[in-house]
Amino acid sequence: MNTPFWDRQALNRAIRELQSCLCIGLDTDETRIPRAVTGKDKVFDFNKSIIDATADLAVAYKINAAFYEAMGQAGWQAMADTIAYIRDKRRFVILDAKRGDIGNTGELYARACFEQLDADAVTVSPYMGRDSVLPFLSRPGRWAILLALTSNTGAEDFQLQRMASGRKLFEEVIHLSSRWGSPDQLMYVAGATRIGNLLEVRNLLPEYFLLIPGVGAQGGDLGQVMKQAMTTSGDLLINASRSILYASAGPDYIQAAREEALKMQSSMRTHILEKSVNLEP
Amino acid sequence: MNTPFWDRQALNRAIRELQSCLCIGLDTDETRIPRAVTGKDKVFDFNKSIIDATADLAVAYKINAAFYEAMGQAGWQAMADTIAYIRDKRRFVILDAKRGDIGNTGELYARACFEQLDADAVTVSPYMGRDSVLPFLSRPGRWAILLALTSNTGAEDFQLQRMASGRKLFEEVIHLSSRWGSPDQLMYVAGATRIGNLLEVRNLLPEYFLLIPGVGAQGGDLGQVMKQAMTTSGDLLINASRSILYASAGPDYIQAAREEALKMQSSMRTHILEKSVNLEP
Repeated sequence: MNTPFWDRQALNRAIRELQSCLCIGLDTDETRIPRAVTGKDKVFDFNKSIIDATADLAVAYKINAAFYEAMGQAGWQAMADTIAYIRDKRRFVILDAKRGDIGNTGELYARACFEQLDADAVTVSPYMGRDSVLPFLSRPGRWAILLALTSNTGAEDFQLQRMASGRKLFEEVIHLSSRWGSPDQLMYVAGATRIGNLLEVRNLLPEYFLLIPGVGAQGGDLGQVMKQAMTTSGDLLINASRSILYASAGPDYIQAAREEALKMQSSMRTHILEKSVNLEP
Repeated sequence: MNTPFWDRQALNRAIRELQSCLCIGLDTDETRIPRAVTGKDKVFDFNKSIIDATADLAVAYKINAAFYEAMGQAGWQAMADTIAYIRDKRRFVILDAKRGDIGNTGELYARACFEQLDADAVTVSPYMGRDSVLPFLSRPGRWAILLALTSNTGAEDFQLQRMASGRKLFEEVIHLSSRWGSPDQLMYVAGATRIGNLLEVRNLLPEYFLLIPGVGAQGGDLGQVMKQAMTTSGDLLINASRSILYASAGPDYIQAAREEALKMQSSMRTHILEKSVNLEP
């Protein structure tokens, strides 16, 4: 199967074509799958129905590894099957696994994410520094998505603390790490719940994609996020997970998920047209 | 099977009984397994032979998750089987997975590590702050091992940078996080390659266990590490992986691994006796 080669331009092309920067987070919790989903592979079947219902509205899907690892070996298989299904739909696949370890171990995590599981991108923690990030940048077309400023309250503990350099830790992470990889392979996480810092992140990273969680169930404002973080090329993925996945617990869950995704995509389209995201490739 | 309840006292008792603070890292690389190991479950069989040969010399074993994840579903099974085998031997099992994510996702990682895989401890990255660490501290007898100062060169990028508070980032991590959990559940990683900082880490954490990688193949000096980091109670695990696992590629690999582990344990015993590690429980 011929899947896209994802560089910055290809991702921005997808944003223009779909008039969407939506990333749907597949935080699939066994206990929250609607009862209408039956059968042996409930997790994969649920994911498949969500993907089928939203693939014309979303540029990317994000697999939250924790949910699958908590199911053990069967979860690992559901994760692999889901990734393959998304690739067949020619959508960008993010493995949200927050990996990162010293050189030789990091290379094995990269192999697990990009070869075993065949994801296009993986989220990476910056704490261990350069040699823990580089292994995820050694395969053309495969991305590291580095945590800069996360959406949780714990971001205040270290990320928002000021360094002796005058920069906050997340700014220091951006400052240093943006030399490690190009905007064709390196992307950053910046939480929508910290709207005051989003413009700052964008100013530090005018050419890099941002992946923004925290819209939807976590309460971040979609319109504000688009205004602060989208460039005239695009360069933005906004993630929503629970608000779409569990839009309904009833037998209408597929329709409800589509409606929720459509609501977000419509709002995104307005902002994309307003910002006149460059229509040339 | 009745496995030990691991608190600080139980771990220190094991150190005194075995006169060892050795942790053997099972960084099992399929391509480096000696040819003498044959059969379908090569990875688990190799681990089993290493564990059988060293269980009287090592207090703990550390599973490096990356190596197993890189083998996909079969690797996940080998990891689960190995953990169960170590538990049967009544040794402390560390899952070195460098996990960490926001609250609800963190809880699922904790479930994956402590319930699905049944490890006693898991390594956790501090970058996302308090709510990303707490889920790993909610089960009595199960441990979070927080990255403070790692053994790789990338530690210089952020961990060793000075904050506006005057503390280095790794000191700030220790300062703040040591309030999140007690010495019965929370332990810290401090690399043996940064011997100059080890005493500092110990002074900041007089009552917490330290897990020290970087002795062996990475070049840290065992005697120096013991002097700087062991307390009169013990409170120390020193990890060696490759130097033991791959001591020989020949059919004598079991004997060679045991000899390497014995060499380390003998040296540890001398230091434990010198430091007169408290023989009372």
